[in-house]
Amino acid sequence: MGNLFSPLPSQLPEEVSRVLVNSASLRIERIVSHGHTSPAGFWYDQEENEWVVVLKGRARLQFQGAEKLLEMGPGDFVNIPAHQRHRVQWTTDQEPTIWLAVFYHHD
Amino acid sequence: MGNLFSPLPSQLPEEVSRVLVNSASLRIERIVSHGHTSPAGFWYDQEENEWVVVLKGRARLQFQGAEKLLEMGPGDFVNIPAHQRHRVQWTTDQEPTIWLAVFYHHD
Repeated sequence: MGNLFSPLPSQLPEEVSRVLVNSASLRIERIVSHGHTSPAGFWYDQEENEWVVVLKGRARLQFQGAEKLLEMGPGDFVNIPAHQRHRVQWTTDQEPTIWLAVFYHHD
Repeated sequence: MGNLFSPLPSQLPEEVSRVLVNSASLRIERIVSHGHTSPAGFWYDQEENEWVVVLKGRARLQFQGAEKLLEMGPGDFVNIPAHQRHRVQWTTDQEPTIWLAVFYHHD
């Protein structure tokens, strides 16, 4: 057993990811951000689908080709199909933002 | 996009499950309990592995053959291998207990 909310990394020079499950069919990660964003011009372009939820904190996701940013707060989830290019445009610096991400292959 | 914390079912005569992702490799469900427990003598015996986290509320899981109950509160997660018989021994009646469960096949 473990807990998603504690302990948190004490130092966050960059986004920190912890793999909770790693199987042939999926990977579950807890990701902690604190004011981190994707570098300007960087886009995630992933082989896997990603279902991701913000559990604490606040974030904004940007999707390539979409004008509007996706504002996310506690409980908000989104499914990102493989190769849908996206980036983290903003996370709050007021508190850690805790994400739970499930990466999986098949539709 | 959706939110895990709202809306919640307004009536909870029994535990309510909502499928968020259903793919060949996994199924993600939000489950809401409010004082519900597994019937006496009932054990879940699942074909799939289940990674499950309590996001709000409190619960106790019982595993067949284990003397100690697993106390779970916000953020607590556990991985339940396929066919590990278990039951929900208790959920609090003070508030809804919100679970996120990821069911998957392969180790």
